[in-house]
Parts: sequence; structure tokens; C-alpha cells
Amino acid sequence: MADVSGSAGRSVGRAAPGPAIGVDVGGTRIKAGRVTESGRVVDRSVVKVGQARDEADIVARIADLVTALDPDGGLPVGVAAAGVIDHAAGCVRESPNFPGWRDFELAARVREATQRVVALENDANAVVFGEAIAGAGRGARNLMGYTLGTGVGGGLVLDGRIWRGERGMAGELGHVTVVPDGRQCGCGNRGCLEQYAGQVGIRRTMAERGGALAELAGDSSAPARLAELAQAGDAEAQAVFASLGAHLGMAAAALVHTLDVTTVLLCGGIAAAAALFVPAMESELRARTFRSMSAGVEIRVGTLGADAGIVGAAAVACGCSA
Amino acid sequence: MADVSGSAGRSVGRAAPGPAIGVDVGGTRIKAGRVTESGRVVDRSVVKVGQARDEADIVARIADLVTALDPDGGLPVGVAAAGVIDHAAGCVRESPNFPGWRDFELAARVREATQRVVALENDANAVVFGEAIAGAGRGARNLMGYTLGTGVGGGLVLDGRIWRGERGMAGELGHVTVVPDGRQCGCGNRGCLEQYAGQVGIRRTMAERGGALAELAGDSSAPARLAELAQAGDAEAQAVFASLGAHLGMAAAALVHTLDVTTVLLCGGIAAAAALFVPAMESELRARTFRSMSAGVEIRVGTLGADAGIVGAAAVACGCSA
Repeated sequence: MADVSGSAGRSVGRAAPGPAIGVDVGGTRIKAGRVTESGRVVDRSVVKVGQARDEADIVARIADLVTALDPDGGLPVGVAAAGVIDHAAGCVRESPNFPGWRDFELAARVREATQRVVALENDANAVVFGEAIAGAGRGARNLMGYTLGTGVGGGLVLDGRIWRGERGMAGELGHVTVVPDGRQCGCGNRGCLEQYAGQVGIRRTMAERGGALAELAGDSSAPARLAELAQAGDAEAQAVFASLGAHLGMAAAALVHTLDVTTVLLCGGIAAAAALFVPAMESELRARTFRSMSAGVEIRVGTLGADAGIVGAAAVACGCSA
Repeated sequence: MADVSGSAGRSVGRAAPGPAIGVDVGGTRIKAGRVTESGRVVDRSVVKVGQARDEADIVARIADLVTALDPDGGLPVGVAAAGVIDHAAGCVRESPNFPGWRDFELAARVREATQRVVALENDANAVVFGEAIAGAGRGARNLMGYTLGTGVGGGLVLDGRIWRGERGMAGELGHVTVVPDGRQCGCGNRGCLEQYAGQVGIRRTMAERGGALAELAGDSSAPARLAELAQAGDAEAQAVFASLGAHLGMAAAALVHTLDVTTVLLCGGIAAAAALFVPAMESELRARTFRSMSAGVEIRVGTLGADAGIVGAAAVACGCSA
């Protein structure tokens, strides 16, 4: 119980986010960690997804990770995966990372393979929940979080719990329209936030601006190169980040007006460059919101990095609330 | 208990929305009604707001209405009012209809004057909750509702309860941006839904289109005149409603992606013309949403009319959930 001081902001008696095993199933790697009662990851393990990419292979690799991290058994397991999760059935309806999966009963299969209590959660929800419980969102019971990676995902924590919506699909914060006649998005819409604020969106902005930036837009290291340029004072590169921030601020303003949530988290790889786009985000958010509503809004950058999904998954398995 | 069949979609054991008195405090009139266990309004009364418009006058008029509708006493009272409501304190922090009010402890004052249990709610929340409990939203536990009046307000019902947010300000659905560089809004933003989908917004659209419509845009009867023209086949008038619908659909799409709520309610006076703008709303909503998310979304028009706020206020007083 030495860690209880770490749960500031949560009432005594609420379930802790651990001890548990958190597993984060990505498109190329599966990361797992042992999470303490205070939400720290004290032991980690990673395996690549096998070439087969099929259900049996994934279950076997998850089971190996869990057993290695908790050889004595007994710890509950939280599994985070991209896609549409049916929480009642513990199943992944479909996943962008694994197009072959259809109604994959991941929770039951891992339960069978490991003889442990297993909970399933959407990966972006897990990241935001992890930060809410043990990272940048600690102390807040209501949060919205953006996961700025290749695309833009997100999650909502309302009244201490992940808000999953009517069918478990809530939290698609990257598909809020920010440019009504803007870039075509994979969801069918035009001008989604995702097309302007993730790695792919940044590269599209760079390509559109032409010149030296367009030449850098070709590969996934473009945002990192862009950040270097912006930090060195390149006005064009700074403008790309300012545009990203303005689009994020506009999207967040809509949710502040709708949900009256005052904590906004920025997670994912692109959040490492937050200093370059948060000023524009903040000013756009405030310009687009009732003063009385934007007054208390705080934008915070995630502190757990790649551990966030592991911690969030573990917290879900423990029935923890923020 | 003859009315129990009327609570379809709610579990046995949940509190009913009545019997209670619901009061809806508008800018010019105060409406009240006695609400049955099944959410029907069986007795109504209305008074004008006095010229004084001060706190004591409002409390006295509410108390008179309550006593007239429930002379034997004992029924709980729900009061709906526009503005920022502090639920914990039972107080109206500020109100657009009564600029003189500041931290007005309306609940305590009515409690004192009537010797009844009194609950306070934001008026748009009450309208949407009333429809959720006993009107067009019956059977749904998650809803978003637009109140299309002079401006555009709204409310969210999540997991059967009104979602009030961190500070009681949630549900400002009219202040979602639909035209990034659009019309100036009173909230500070540009291009809010309210500037395109309420009575004032419709009149601005009419004025902008020029010609015969611009001449009709001058007074508050403009939307009704416009609806007559559209119903008679006037293409210009129909285009104004299609534009309204498209803006509503775009705003609703953002919330479907964010909240995964599948029931969308249209309330308020403008909703009477729903047949003229729902087709455009629906097609825009579907075009801007993942197919798997828009699939189950239903747009429904409120059925309680001016009673909705009364029923919603009564339901809040009874601790009812959808």
C-alpha cells in the first residue's frame, strides 16, 4: 500500500488500476506490462505479431507474454486492441489492423489460454484511460483525449469511466469535421480532423504547401523532420504545426460546448511536438468557445508514452475508475 | 399504476417521471403542469413574467402556479430555466433571459415558498429529457437532442441521465462549428450551428439569398412563411431548408462519431418543419460518418411540443432516468 499516495484525486475505496497485466495489441507488435496498484509499469515485454496474423497466433503470443510477466498466475489481464469492440461479448467485431478478424472472441480465448480474468478495450480508449488514471489526466474525472499517431483516434472519460456509447464505438474524435469541403477521409467524410492532425495529415499539409517541405513529406519520419525545422525557426514548418493546432482547437471547442469537459489530453507520437502546436490549439479553442466554458479548460500532454495503453488496459481489467 | 404500460423501454423499478409539478420558466411566460406517473401533462397553467422580472416576483409566480396545480401539496417540483445552472447549489448562475440574475438560489427560494422538494434544470436539457422519458425518445437510453427555437440549444442523455458535464454547462449543441469562417455568433465563435439552424439563422440565410426571401426575413414569422413557400414547391425556400438540414447533419455527425449515440431528437418550433429539412440532414449525416456508426442512427421529431420542458423538469424532480 506504499503507493496509495499516487492515487491523488481519486476517492479512497475505488478500485486501483493494478496489480494487473496490461496488453496492447498493435498492428505489428504486442506490448505487455505488469502494472502496480498505483498504475506504474514495473515489467515489460514485447513480441512481434507473427506472419500468420491469425487469431490462434495472437492468442498464443498474448498468453506467452502474460505467463512470462505473471508466472504465479492470478493477476487479471486487460487487452487493448484497435477496432470495434463488443464489450458484452468480449469480442473484436472488426479491426483496421487485422482485416481478417470478424467477431473474434479475444477475451474468452485469452481467458481460456491463461486461466485469468480478462477484459477487452479499444486501444485509443485504453491510452486515454491510462493517462486519466496514472498520467497527465490524474485528478480529473472527465476528460477527452486525442491519440495523435498515424491517424487520429481518441477517447472520452465521463464521470470516471470510459464512455463507450450505445454500441461500443464512441471516441472517434479524429472524425469530427474541421474543414467542411476538405480532404477526403477513409470514413467517407471530407475534412475530418484526422486528415490534418495525424502523421498522414501532417504529410498531406506538407505536400500541399510545396517547396522544401513537400520534398520531406514522403515518409513517416516527416513529422520528426518537420519538428526539427520548426524548432530551428523555419517559418514554413512552424506554420504547418500552427495549422494542425488550429484544427485541433476547433475540434476540441465543439466537444467543450457539447460535453463541458475541462481536461483535454494529447497522446501519441505527434504529441511529442506539442510545444509547437498547443499555442495555436489553445487560442483557436478559446476563440471558438463561450468564455465561461473555455475558462477552466486545460490542455495537457500525456506523460506515460508507450505505457499508456498498457496501464489503461490493466485499469479496465481491475474495474478502476478515474 | 394503470399507466405503467406507458413506461416501455425502461426497466421495472426505475423512478417514474411523476406525479410531480413541472415548471418551465421562459423569458416572457412561466408554464407549469401536473405530470402523471407515465409522463402525461394532465393540468396546465401559464402566467406572464411580471414587469419587475426580479427574483422575488418569479418565485411568487412559480409558487402560485404550483399551489394552484397541487392544492393539497406534497408533489415534488421541477423547475426548468435558461442559463447556467449549478445543480449542487440549486442556483441559476446567470441567465440569458434575465440578465439581472446572479447566483439566484431559485430551488431554495421555491422550496421555501411552497414547502415542497424542488429540483432545478437547464431548460433545453429539460426539453430533451422530457422527450426521452415520455415522448419521441422513449425506449432510448442515449440521446442527443436539438432545440430549434430562436437560437439552437440542446441536451444529451447518456446512460439514461442528463449529461451536465463538469460544471453543469454541457449540451450547448448549437455552438458546434459548421462553417469555420462563417457567421459571427454571440458566443465568440464563427459559424456555429445556431447561426444556420434556428429562427435567427434561417432569417440570416433568407436575407443572404436576397430576392423575395430577403423581403420576408424581417420578422420572427419568417420560418413559418418560408415553410409555406417550400411546401408549395418554391425551390428557393426549399433550398434554405436543405441548407439548414445539411448543417444540422454535419453537426450531428461529429457527435455520432464522438459519443456513439444513435437517437437524434429534433425539438422546438422549427422542428415543426422537419419534413422539409430532415432528408438533407440525414443524407449529410450519413455522408459524414463511418457506415457502421451511422447505420443505426434514427432522427426523430419531438412529440410533446410545449409540454416537453414541463415533463422533463418533473422527471428530474422525481429522479427518473430514461
